[in-house]
Amino acid sequence: MYEGAVQDLIDELGRLPGIGPKSAQRIAFHILEADKDDMQRLAESIQTVKDKVHFCEVCFNVTEQDRCAICRDDRRDETVLCVVEESKDVMVIERTRSFRGKYHVLGGSINPMAGIGPEQLHIRELLTRLSDDRLQEVIIATDPNLEGEATATYLARTLKTLGIQVTRLASGLPVGGDLEYADEVTLGRAFEGRRSLIG
Amino acid sequence: MYEGAVQDLIDELGRLPGIGPKSAQRIAFHILEADKDDMQRLAESIQTVKDKVHFCEVCFNVTEQDRCAICRDDRRDETVLCVVEESKDVMVIERTRSFRGKYHVLGGSINPMAGIGPEQLHIRELLTRLSDDRLQEVIIATDPNLEGEATATYLARTLKTLGIQVTRLASGLPVGGDLEYADEVTLGRAFEGRRSLIG
Repeated sequence: MYEGAVQDLIDELGRLPGIGPKSAQRIAFHILEADKDDMQRLAESIQTVKDKVHFCEVCFNVTEQDRCAICRDDRRDETVLCVVEESKDVMVIERTRSFRGKYHVLGGSINPMAGIGPEQLHIRELLTRLSDDRLQEVIIATDPNLEGEATATYLARTLKTLGIQVTRLASGLPVGGDLEYADEVTLGRAFEGRRSLIG
Repeated sequence: MYEGAVQDLIDELGRLPGIGPKSAQRIAFHILEADKDDMQRLAESIQTVKDKVHFCEVCFNVTEQDRCAICRDDRRDETVLCVVEESKDVMVIERTRSFRGKYHVLGGSINPMAGIGPEQLHIRELLTRLSDDRLQEVIIATDPNLEGEATATYLARTLKTLGIQVTRLASGLPVGGDLEYADEVTLGRAFEGRRSLIG
């Protein structure tokens, strides 16, 4: 539709997640009209990420070194390991400041429809890490959706015989939410997981 | 929040129009995990656009040459000039295949709140083009919003004395739309612009 380079840029932008043809066009025109140095910085930051950032050799979190900042931090609790699907989940949990242990990033969740089985995830490496005697608990923090639950069930079954405590994050009503707007499955989970308030 | 390069990329992406912090993070992680060659192509397409694409010296449409494809095309009608705000408006109108004349891109619309007056737009260059004797009609196709209407009114007043026909695109109900959902202003315009169906 447009001349060469502009259309190329619209095509490339349109391949990014969550960017439709209209957004791609708007962003392309923004790039066209923006300051050349700013756009050079954007292009370079894409190249730098591809050149310098890779996955931690221990936990598969993103890092610019061999091991990520959390794996390098001696003050973190070595007895608890939190298993998540993606690097971004590590950041989400870090922001809560309610976990001081270490992480293991699976690199996704079990999804047979997309051809992702246990062997496509970093589960073998997880099992190797579990041989560490200091480890007492594995918290499975995969997403509370179909694939995340399947992954949690698979991990629970695999880890059962190792003598380590395996826990799963609680499901229930979101804090600050409204009972009226909760879906039935979440409300059902909230009932199952109800806690005693007295004694 | 993230380590160096990843956070830099999230920051740069977050400056693009329509990309909030969540989208910026999702796109950054997509870039991290995507094929390196694909991402190199994205970075290069940004640089190529900044290096090669500029504005047509005649109409200010985007082009990789001195003059844009439409200005270079001898088969286009030289007697009608369509004035639009942005290059993307040229493409939108081209897609309708209902206009075969030439264009003039103003580079925006009059918006005193944003400090954009007539002198910030390519109006002087438009007046120079209007001295061409072949020209018979100027169609003002600025957006049907406050700034676009102000620009149209300004242009109509400025061109009044030149003896060229000045027209404005019709406002009215969108084809395929529903009367019930039309806003009052659009419906009011549709009444004003009503056409006779019989002879």
